[in-house]
Amino acid sequence: MPGKSAPSPLLYSDTERSPDALYFGRVNVPDAFIAFGHRGKKYAVVGALEFGRVRKTSDFDIVLPLEAWQQRARETWPKRVAGIAEVIQLLAKAYRVPRFTVPVEFPAGLYAQLRQAGVALDICDGALFPARECKSAAEAAAIREGNRCSALGFAAAERILRASRRRGRTLVHRGEVLTSEKLKFAIEVACLEAGAVSANTIVAGGDQACDPHERGSGPIRPDELVIIDIFPRVTRTGFYGDMTRTFLRGRASDAQRALVGAVREAQRAALRSIRAGVNGRDVHRQVVAVFAQRGYETRHTEQGSVGFFHGTGHGLGLAVHEPPRLSGSVDWTLLKGSVVTVEPGLYYPGLGACRIEDVVQVTSAQPRLLSRYSYEWELR
Amino acid sequence: MPGKSAPSPLLYSDTERSPDALYFGRVNVPDAFIAFGHRGKKYAVVGALEFGRVRKTSDFDIVLPLEAWQQRARETWPKRVAGIAEVIQLLAKAYRVPRFTVPVEFPAGLYAQLRQAGVALDICDGALFPARECKSAAEAAAIREGNRCSALGFAAAERILRASRRRGRTLVHRGEVLTSEKLKFAIEVACLEAGAVSANTIVAGGDQACDPHERGSGPIRPDELVIIDIFPRVTRTGFYGDMTRTFLRGRASDAQRALVGAVREAQRAALRSIRAGVNGRDVHRQVVAVFAQRGYETRHTEQGSVGFFHGTGHGLGLAVHEPPRLSGSVDWTLLKGSVVTVEPGLYYPGLGACRIEDVVQVTSAQPRLLSRYSYEWELR
Repeated sequence: MPGKSAPSPLLYSDTERSPDALYFGRVNVPDAFIAFGHRGKKYAVVGALEFGRVRKTSDFDIVLPLEAWQQRARETWPKRVAGIAEVIQLLAKAYRVPRFTVPVEFPAGLYAQLRQAGVALDICDGALFPARECKSAAEAAAIREGNRCSALGFAAAERILRASRRRGRTLVHRGEVLTSEKLKFAIEVACLEAGAVSANTIVAGGDQACDPHERGSGPIRPDELVIIDIFPRVTRTGFYGDMTRTFLRGRASDAQRALVGAVREAQRAALRSIRAGVNGRDVHRQVVAVFAQRGYETRHTEQGSVGFFHGTGHGLGLAVHEPPRLSGSVDWTLLKGSVVTVEPGLYYPGLGACRIEDVVQVTSAQPRLLSRYSYEWELR
Repeated sequence: MPGKSAPSPLLYSDTERSPDALYFGRVNVPDAFIAFGHRGKKYAVVGALEFGRVRKTSDFDIVLPLEAWQQRARETWPKRVAGIAEVIQLLAKAYRVPRFTVPVEFPAGLYAQLRQAGVALDICDGALFPARECKSAAEAAAIREGNRCSALGFAAAERILRASRRRGRTLVHRGEVLTSEKLKFAIEVACLEAGAVSANTIVAGGDQACDPHERGSGPIRPDELVIIDIFPRVTRTGFYGDMTRTFLRGRASDAQRALVGAVREAQRAALRSIRAGVNGRDVHRQVVAVFAQRGYETRHTEQGSVGFFHGTGHGLGLAVHEPPRLSGSVDWTLLKGSVVTVEPGLYYPGLGACRIEDVVQVTSAQPRLLSRYSYEWELR
């Protein structure tokens, strides 16, 4: 979307922390560096440690050596420390940038220094690169690849769950008690093998899973619901996958079956309602309606919440959580090409929890599914 | 170090991006949240998704539900969006915090909103939690554990290098051409197995290694220097290890031997000079002196730099790069208890590159080594 990005964007971050910086230069830089755009050209200022590599492999049109610009700053202001603010001040002058636009996450310390030095800065109202929200075919393929890694993770976990045997209140696999940690290890190795890093993988069973961000630990119990949420980052592209399935090894109760059925039906209702021009809030309401209709109450107590108490989904790309949102409290009209997760869940300590998450790309008709894995969950 | 931290610190970040937030609350929170300290108490404001877990497992004294505070903001200012700035404004009033101190990395957008709303903010001059620089015995042990994971990675890589056979200009392992990718996979699996995630592992051979942050790809060649840099994060604690070794499978030339010898001698000289009260700049000068004495020149060209063109080391902890610095351009006096990497390197396209990195804790005498792995590098 040319012409739609902010005028003269300015970034100061590493590419691990800033998906914008990675999007802008398409190169990994592990330490904070200066990047800016002006009159259709992209500039990076990096130290000797990065210089050759960024010059050879990035999308930046002009790569400048930080040390030389620090030297210029020392010569210009012999009494000041030649810091990042001083270098940016010189760059603005040398490249005749009247004002920069910075993202809301721009570091406040540098922001205050630049303002004091008289560099004109606007804080971006919204996304610095709005085009990031709408994914190209190549970007959608990169997300699909991330989800392929998630699916390989489920396959690894499911294989172990199926091969494990009940011994009292535990499951035993290859002579050892099966734990969340062992399943996570198998999942993360499967992701690595496929070229992605899955950090913070969730494998949480029973009441543990009732805290949606609890990663899970200790023995996996038979006949309990186990939430597995895998959001690997593909090393080559930086794009994420994000999928969740809920399994149960053993025999499900009627209440567990009803719970899983309600979550899957809520997901289907949400998926049916997704289309360019629809408000994310209305997608979320589809989920709320299914749960209400089936009698699943949401309650907030001093100890925490039960029922359905998170958003229905979020944008996915170079960040694992990015715009748009499918949430009751956010007003966001879905654009064609955006990619969102659809992940309703229900959480009731005592009974357990279920979340099912897939990823779709918004079109002007039915959304395009970018994640594939079976929904079979009761592993007898 | 009570009394030494900034008065009423305020953070708004997730704990992946902000080591300060992790240090403050000792709990993982994957989305940005409000955290602040006042009169010796630690407060967190989190959504329903995190509430129960943060309440149960964190160091926060008081955990407040975000939704309830947003509701209060809506009631107070019916015409405004009940955002994070509005909630912080209410918190400052409710808990009688006259002014907050924010870190330099605090988001500029929120900083500007809060200032406009009349919330008094000081940007911290230096570290928000200076105590983070000096590691307790438990923190040093956590870093040692990170380095144990690095060492397991070297062992996995060395085993494969030794087991591989020369076939022309390639090495063959289990019938397949040995590549950087295959070594990285073995290293990262070894780290996972030990409870750590090693992302962005570097396995770079030959001229690839002359770009210090090049991760490496493609075939590993016999008789070439291969830099392996492993900086895993231990999942349980969030602390990092960071070690580098340089290997060569085959037979080294005299020039390669001299290069590796110089780097190891430079590392020894640096290690001998590290002590509380010494300036990091002077440690770096020890390295520069060894290289100069042995005739290894550093040159900066249009294509990049050769020789020794990065710092000698950096602090290590909940971030992989943190204070202090051992660098020619940074004036930093080493404190007792701080933990630093010592990683001289030499980079000459055509000959190849070598870096050797260990980690020590600064004491009032000889530094304490927190990393252990053999320095044997020529694998015939």
